[in-house]
Amino acid sequence: MLLLSDEQVQDLITADMCLESLEQAYRELGQGWAGSSKRTDIITAHARSDNQEPCHGLKSMMGVVSGIKVGAIRINSDIITWLSSEAGMKRVKLPKAPGGRYTALVLLFSTRTGELLSLFPDASIQRMRVGATSALGAKYLSRQNSEVLGVYGSGWQAGAHLMAAAKVRNIKKVLVYSPNRERCRAFCSQMASLLEMEVEPSPEPADVMRAADIVMSCTNSLDQVILGKRLREGMYICSVKPGEIDLDAYERAEVLILNTRQAGPADYLINGGREVPPGLVKERKSYIDGFDPAAYGRIDWQNLPLLSDVISGKGPQRESDAQITCFSNNLGIGMQFAAVGHAVYRAAKEKGIGKELPSEWFSQLNHP
Amino acid sequence: MLLLSDEQVQDLITADMCLESLEQAYRELGQGWAGSSKRTDIITAHARSDNQEPCHGLKSMMGVVSGIKVGAIRINSDIITWLSSEAGMKRVKLPKAPGGRYTALVLLFSTRTGELLSLFPDASIQRMRVGATSALGAKYLSRQNSEVLGVYGSGWQAGAHLMAAAKVRNIKKVLVYSPNRERCRAFCSQMASLLEMEVEPSPEPADVMRAADIVMSCTNSLDQVILGKRLREGMYICSVKPGEIDLDAYERAEVLILNTRQAGPADYLINGGREVPPGLVKERKSYIDGFDPAAYGRIDWQNLPLLSDVISGKGPQRESDAQITCFSNNLGIGMQFAAVGHAVYRAAKEKGIGKELPSEWFSQLNHP
Repeated sequence: MLLLSDEQVQDLITADMCLESLEQAYRELGQGWAGSSKRTDIITAHARSDNQEPCHGLKSMMGVVSGIKVGAIRINSDIITWLSSEAGMKRVKLPKAPGGRYTALVLLFSTRTGELLSLFPDASIQRMRVGATSALGAKYLSRQNSEVLGVYGSGWQAGAHLMAAAKVRNIKKVLVYSPNRERCRAFCSQMASLLEMEVEPSPEPADVMRAADIVMSCTNSLDQVILGKRLREGMYICSVKPGEIDLDAYERAEVLILNTRQAGPADYLINGGREVPPGLVKERKSYIDGFDPAAYGRIDWQNLPLLSDVISGKGPQRESDAQITCFSNNLGIGMQFAAVGHAVYRAAKEKGIGKELPSEWFSQLNHP
Repeated sequence: MLLLSDEQVQDLITADMCLESLEQAYRELGQGWAGSSKRTDIITAHARSDNQEPCHGLKSMMGVVSGIKVGAIRINSDIITWLSSEAGMKRVKLPKAPGGRYTALVLLFSTRTGELLSLFPDASIQRMRVGATSALGAKYLSRQNSEVLGVYGSGWQAGAHLMAAAKVRNIKKVLVYSPNRERCRAFCSQMASLLEMEVEPSPEPADVMRAADIVMSCTNSLDQVILGKRLREGMYICSVKPGEIDLDAYERAEVLILNTRQAGPADYLINGGREVPPGLVKERKSYIDGFDPAAYGRIDWQNLPLLSDVISGKGPQRESDAQITCFSNNLGIGMQFAAVGHAVYRAAKEKGIGKELPSEWFSQLNHP
């Protein structure tokens, strides 16, 4: 059993590795040879005596990719609180494990022997899988001659999107908009030197839409970021949270696909029947911040094609350079952790990285 | 992080520990302070080339008990095949992990810090939780003066039931019926010396019903075992699988409760759209062998009270020595692994048993 730290995963993982492993997994998903279970959450609310005590969130999602013969489960054990911010109640995870750390693990199993192959924290894979999935959408649905990339957001998620997108198209220039101008400038100069590419801050959000062929939204914003009125012919747009794109933009997209048709977790609330705190109400209604499916009632979410349909050749394709294409609801699915986790595991084995623990520590002689 | 082997769990776990921890957990469940997520299964069927290759089953269930501040996830990574037997297709798990071992793990998390407290295989807890839960039903619903215990089955599940039942009532005599007479005799003599109690094999199934005050069915049988026509006044009956009790017996029970209203897992099948093998069809219809809910259509499964209602004082109680009471659908729920797992963990800490591994191996500095 190979134990890896998040730092080791971070050193091993590459955008190419993520793109390649996810492309295979999505192709298998479209063919019926891969799958993910619905995510489940148990949120344990404030304890009996102290209403200010943070909540606990236990969350898991599973996935299997048959072709690489692995299954994975990703488990998050989060300490959650809600803080007031300018944009309303904001959900915050607290690093309460010893050493000021977070607890979130991926367990990788062999579907041939059942054994636990590897165990590692989720952060680096979590970061990279989102950007790589948005970029896979761009690989299949953006114009081949796309040269200008626009990014909303300047956090770690934005960085991962930029790195992955630069692998699938010959990007000449990147425009970044983020309301925090100082952070945006720092992000641009960091990315410019990392990718040896022109990466510039945009003064206004609309500037991004005026110049970019590909626009990716990866923000914490509760407001809509990609607006239909600013769309131009031939663009590919995508967002992690569906609420970052407005209804007009969804309706103008001639090809509209989703990562998954899931709208949220199957969740369970433990709070002794007490009144639910305000943050938790939002959590339960939809765990995608700022997304209210009712406001998008005209979109038939349950019947839209998926990225897996496109990659396996069953779904729609871009038919002309003039079409507007859109990829949304880039929610995590268990299969991504099996695919990318296995690629990281193989790279670690090849390079002799990680700690080998006895397999017997994680198995038993008695029948389960 | 405390790592325990199944052998260590087996040495630590006691029937008293299971009864006590589960009683608290069920009380909290009834009060809304504990809960379990729905079990999810991904079954990956025969691979492309070889239709005889065993399937893989990835299964998980989660639960939290707020009062003890722990949550747990139990994960099974099973290699499954179906063998023909006299009773039809039989589902068999194969020990394919290195050393001829099975892979099934319980991870115990703190709801205060999120950290992984302990990790151990599931077999000993899995065995004991089922028997202890049936016995909890007996504690609340059998006659106080119950003296004769009847058991159908002579496997490890039967042993666990016997040990737990002997803790909640002053049992003077045990009658065991199992079609394999030799195994039944060996089981009786082993249990007699273990519990210092009269434990006798019954020549015929009906003999058990004629003499016992408490009847527990814990068999692999696909046939109905506890028949309504043999019920006597004042009995408490229970079974692990709901199909071991016939409709007549369910209808004659004046108090009828369930462990959970779940009828099966939320399952996902990966097989590339191929024809589903016969064993898998049964698996998908209902994963409780031999149980066809349609044959019990007159029972309103979704509105029956639960064991948690009874233990928390909200549900029905036995009202006279004449009443017949029944507890069924003793399906595993995640909360049981949190409750019993935490009791085992505490006992291990007290006795200094197990292997302490660095907490940082199972956490991360980066935000998940």
